[in-house]
Amino acid sequence: MARAIGRVAIVGLGLIGSSVARAIKAKLPDVAVTGHDADPDVRAEARALGFCDAVSDDAAEAVEGADLVILAVPVGRMADAAAAIAPGLSAHAIISDVGSSKAGVGAALRAALPGHVVVPAHPVAGTENSGPAAGFATLFDGRWCIVTPAPDAPADAVAAVTGLWQALGAKVETMDAAHHDMVLAVTSHLPHLIAYTIVGTASELEEVTESEVIKYSAGGFRDFTRIAASDPVMWRDVFLANRDAVLATLQRFNEDLTALQQAIRRGDGDRLEDWFTRTRAIRRSIIEQGQDDAAPDFGRKH
Amino acid sequence: MARAIGRVAIVGLGLIGSSVARAIKAKLPDVAVTGHDADPDVRAEARALGFCDAVSDDAAEAVEGADLVILAVPVGRMADAAAAIAPGLSAHAIISDVGSSKAGVGAALRAALPGHVVVPAHPVAGTENSGPAAGFATLFDGRWCIVTPAPDAPADAVAAVTGLWQALGAKVETMDAAHHDMVLAVTSHLPHLIAYTIVGTASELEEVTESEVIKYSAGGFRDFTRIAASDPVMWRDVFLANRDAVLATLQRFNEDLTALQQAIRRGDGDRLEDWFTRTRAIRRSIIEQGQDDAAPDFGRKH
Ligand SMILES: NC(=O)c1ccc[n+]([C@@H]2O[C@H](COP(=O)([O-])OP(=O)(O)OC[C@H]3O[C@@H](n4cnc5c(N)ncnc54)[C@H](OP(=O)(O)O)[C@@H]3O)[C@@H](O)[C@H]2O)c1
Ligand SMILES: NC(=O)c1ccc[n+]([C@@H]2O[C@H](COP(=O)([O-])OP(=O)(O)OC[C@H]3O[C@@H](n4cnc5c(N)ncnc54)[C@H](OP(=O)(O)O)[C@@H]3O)[C@@H](O)[C@H]2O)c1
Repeated sequence: MARAIGRVAIVGLGLIGSSVARAIKAKLPDVAVTGHDADPDVRAEARALGFCDAVSDDAAEAVEGADLVILAVPVGRMADAAAAIAPGLSAHAIISDVGSSKAGVGAALRAALPGHVVVPAHPVAGTENSGPAAGFATLFDGRWCIVTPAPDAPADAVAAVTGLWQALGAKVETMDAAHHDMVLAVTSHLPHLIAYTIVGTASELEEVTESEVIKYSAGGFRDFTRIAASDPVMWRDVFLANRDAVLATLQRFNEDLTALQQAIRRGDGDRLEDWFTRTRAIRRSIIEQGQDDAAPDFGRKH
Repeated sequence: MARAIGRVAIVGLGLIGSSVARAIKAKLPDVAVTGHDADPDVRAEARALGFCDAVSDDAAEAVEGADLVILAVPVGRMADAAAAIAPGLSAHAIISDVGSSKAGVGAALRAALPGHVVVPAHPVAGTENSGPAAGFATLFDGRWCIVTPAPDAPADAVAAVTGLWQALGAKVETMDAAHHDMVLAVTSHLPHLIAYTIVGTASELEEVTESEVIKYSAGGFRDFTRIAASDPVMWRDVFLANRDAVLATLQRFNEDLTALQQAIRRGDGDRLEDWFTRTRAIRRSIIEQGQDDAAPDFGRKH
């Protein structure tokens, strides 16, 4: 049995926090939503947008009476945010979050809030934009949310968090936090690191001007600029928090890149064609499983 | 003054060749279009789709009477395709192509067809699909086409090729072939190489299953799978043809990646945040200049 959730407090009202609030309003109209953000401008914007029943200036006040608190701040700020809500928490409140890395965040929340049930979660959904205006209620539709409870977490609390995400449109998978961090290092953190790198490289070459890079970006480069436009603070925190898994996958990437570099240098066309043929299959599976648009070029309007 | 173009022959009727044919039919209805492809299945499909006035089984026959011949085959096949059309060419026919690398292709065409005017071109537009069914008439709208004539190319022939691409909806820039190859190494070839690499890396990790990679691909990875689903033969040929420029830009990328790797290892958050802040600006410029969709997530439907 899942614990009943009648009131949710959201701390951090940016892209993800505001999307959670909007999705609750749209899909669970009987659940009350309160919110807080450290940034007064964000609070003012959140009030104007109206996706919370109430936005408090004070973190502890925002979580009073909440059955579930969701921390939606950068992963490096989770410990601070947890400390700030502590005075206001009900004894029965479940603490969850949406952070992109999980082992460190889970440990930080448990350390900051001893005696509270902590059920970390990560919705694998987002856009390159941030802030409260960027959120929308359908962000989690058909996407996966990974829940990473400690082995001794009460089953009814885990079921409550799982049930909430399902109600918001997500499919839920439960896994160990360390495994989450390895999986996401591959499917999210390494892609962001590579994209940030190549966009930086391209903008600092002497031989090619930045204006040329922009003009001819439709040859493939523009795809990388989207994720390289993601929030710098959020991503700084992710790389610092998930350092070991990111460095481990990066090493594997470097080995493969060196192998392809050698194939190019040696003119080994068979090796290249072979590699490029194998990578095609993955895209088909992603589309078949509803994780991307089947339309060419992501369905971009030209 | 541009030479008049009343008849265009297209050799290679895949994504790009068929898009050129469709765009001519749509935008220059008075121009006759003939076509040829080495693959009998592609010829049959092209006939059924009807984007050429006539599709010939024989390359030389296809180019008879053409004022302009456009070779739209993989860059490693350009020399063969040029040799095959030679017997059918009118003396005045201008030879052009759409290959993704230019210095090698230009040299190959000039060597194969001495006495003919060669005006190489590269429309910086495409999708991850290939074959005649994947083409469409609006592919070149608002995109750039780079023309790389030799310094002694007759101005009226260069003007004819330029005018054709403009009529098909493209903006045209003229540059030296070697510079083209450096620019495209950055904006297209390196991004493809990196995407092919990371998709291969992700599908061969022991710690993370392929099914997990697919499920959680919405965290960023799926973006890379699109270009890593591009035609293996076309891309093999591009890397072999543009080897030096690709290896040079790859070296710069590797240096930058090593610097970011060090910053992660050392926990140097300022360095990371600084880098990630700079890369944001480029996306804005690309959108402002009409080279990508402003909608979040490329405007994908969720
Ligand atoms: N963006 C994605 O695609 C995505 C996807 C899945 C998960 N996530 C995770 O979701 C979390 C939020 O990301 P986001 O994209 O929603 O970021 P965002 O749009 O930048 O929103 C984060 C908000 O939290 C506020 N904040 C920072 N520290 C705080 C604190 N101690 N107390 C209260 N509010 C605080 C920020 O204010 P200031 O800006 O003034 O600091 C900001 O308004 C991160 O942990 C991220 O890893 C993101
Ligand atoms: N795809 C892009 O995004 C893009 C963008 C700009 C420029 N380009 C360039 O455009 C050219 C064509 O690419 P594409 O994407 O259109 O490829 P595609 O869809 O695979 O079409 C190429 C066609 O050429 C045929 N072919 C191969 N050798 C030939 C020969 N000697 N004579 C006649 N036909 C031959 C192929 O048949 P088989 O398959 O049987 O060999 C195939 O039907 C390449 O040079 C590429 O670099 C591509």
